[in-house]
Amino acid sequence: MADSGDSPATQVPEVRVIGIRGIPMVQPGDDLAEAILTAAKAQGTPLAEGDVVAVTQRVVSKVEARVVPLDTFQPSPFALAYAERTEKDPRLVEAVLRESKRIIRQVGGVLITETHHGFKCANAGVDGSNVGGMDLVSLLPVDPDASCRTIRDGIRQRAGIEVAVVMTDTFGRPWRHGQTNVAIGVAGMQPFRDYVGQTDTDGRELRVTTICTADEIAGAAEMVMGKLDRIPAAIVRGFAYDRGEGKATEIVREMALDLFP
Amino acid sequence: MADSGDSPATQVPEVRVIGIRGIPMVQPGDDLAEAILTAAKAQGTPLAEGDVVAVTQRVVSKVEARVVPLDTFQPSPFALAYAERTEKDPRLVEAVLRESKRIIRQVGGVLITETHHGFKCANAGVDGSNVGGMDLVSLLPVDPDASCRTIRDGIRQRAGIEVAVVMTDTFGRPWRHGQTNVAIGVAGMQPFRDYVGQTDTDGRELRVTTICTADEIAGAAEMVMGKLDRIPAAIVRGFAYDRGEGKATEIVREMALDLFP
Repeated sequence: MADSGDSPATQVPEVRVIGIRGIPMVQPGDDLAEAILTAAKAQGTPLAEGDVVAVTQRVVSKVEARVVPLDTFQPSPFALAYAERTEKDPRLVEAVLRESKRIIRQVGGVLITETHHGFKCANAGVDGSNVGGMDLVSLLPVDPDASCRTIRDGIRQRAGIEVAVVMTDTFGRPWRHGQTNVAIGVAGMQPFRDYVGQTDTDGRELRVTTICTADEIAGAAEMVMGKLDRIPAAIVRGFAYDRGEGKATEIVREMALDLFP
Repeated sequence: MADSGDSPATQVPEVRVIGIRGIPMVQPGDDLAEAILTAAKAQGTPLAEGDVVAVTQRVVSKVEARVVPLDTFQPSPFALAYAERTEKDPRLVEAVLRESKRIIRQVGGVLITETHHGFKCANAGVDGSNVGGMDLVSLLPVDPDASCRTIRDGIRQRAGIEVAVVMTDTFGRPWRHGQTNVAIGVAGMQPFRDYVGQTDTDGRELRVTTICTADEIAGAAEMVMGKLDRIPAAIVRGFAYDRGEGKATEIVREMALDLFP
């Protein structure tokens, strides 16, 4: 699995998931590729050819000026009425609606929508908790795949290495309690691994056909990134992902293909 | 994150995901704990206190004699009619129905059901591809949490160390293409990490409340286990999961709590 040498130890398949500490609080316009390269090197784990770099939606949204004042959003009558009924901030409701192309479920205070990218999640990925008088709201990047390509290209230019980049966000899902990190952007890799037509050691055709490796990378990265913003990036090293120009938007099921619209 | 020492290097949060090669083809009644301990040691990565051991559903089903002849299942008229219409093996359809307590979607050849455990997945987790005349079918373990406890207890008895165990299976999910490994059994850990009431570095209350760490472990393990049965177990090392006596059945949403029945 790891392709980093030929000593006997490399016969053991191993993937390392390494959190990158020391990335400073970023500002709009900051160079995230540079910040990641610097911090990874400073902690003794410099990026290497073939790594996957996972980044949180939050840090990318900050760099891309997608953390904006709540007052940006003038609530519509619909947003005002819903917000009053559910004791929410009407500006926040308006932000969610503007980030959505469709409401999937609206039950009590739960608002699950489809974003303009096609992601299906609570509150269109809008993070509007505001505490201590901070009236800011975090929106998903406009084009997370493009954001990942920018980071990938920046790392290539500065360090001369080819990496893949996965942007993670934390989504709930039907049928199972709890949230997990999933991929909302990718660059430099295919988001899937295809097993169609392969057979197992018994000669059986595999029931499994397509693994969403990008989501597995995102979930693995969460194990070291945590949720407190201190570790907004991680390295996934030793995973033989399929290189290529895939997109996270490929992961989003077309309505016609989805049994659970 | 890692709690394995106090050298400067341990300041870098790192989780290692190590595939365990060399586990022999198992038979019903085999001692899986022993097989895992032996194989992990033989490849130079012996199990250690605090590891999570991930095991595939397939290897546990084999040990627990849940791989059975298809002829075990006498098709009902309903199974016969559906099988004919969709060109499936009627014995396989019967197996899926008997492993299910409810059909969630039945569209063309796709049969998504709720298992007796409460898992919602295609074909009730029954793996019935048969090639080369092998008329066998793999069913999920009867009580995957109990299976995990048995392995955990076996490792404790033989090696004197406390580990957590996660049983993985590969499920599809609504809304997103591709399958990922999820946890269908756990022992020695809580399947969730709770962030309720915590604040981020900006002082904001976290939008994320409950991470399903067991599913993230399962997905991470898939990166080294692959799908060809050769690596039916993996070690996840350095992850500070919450110890305890959790169950994977806690992950399955109660109908009343699920917006997507």
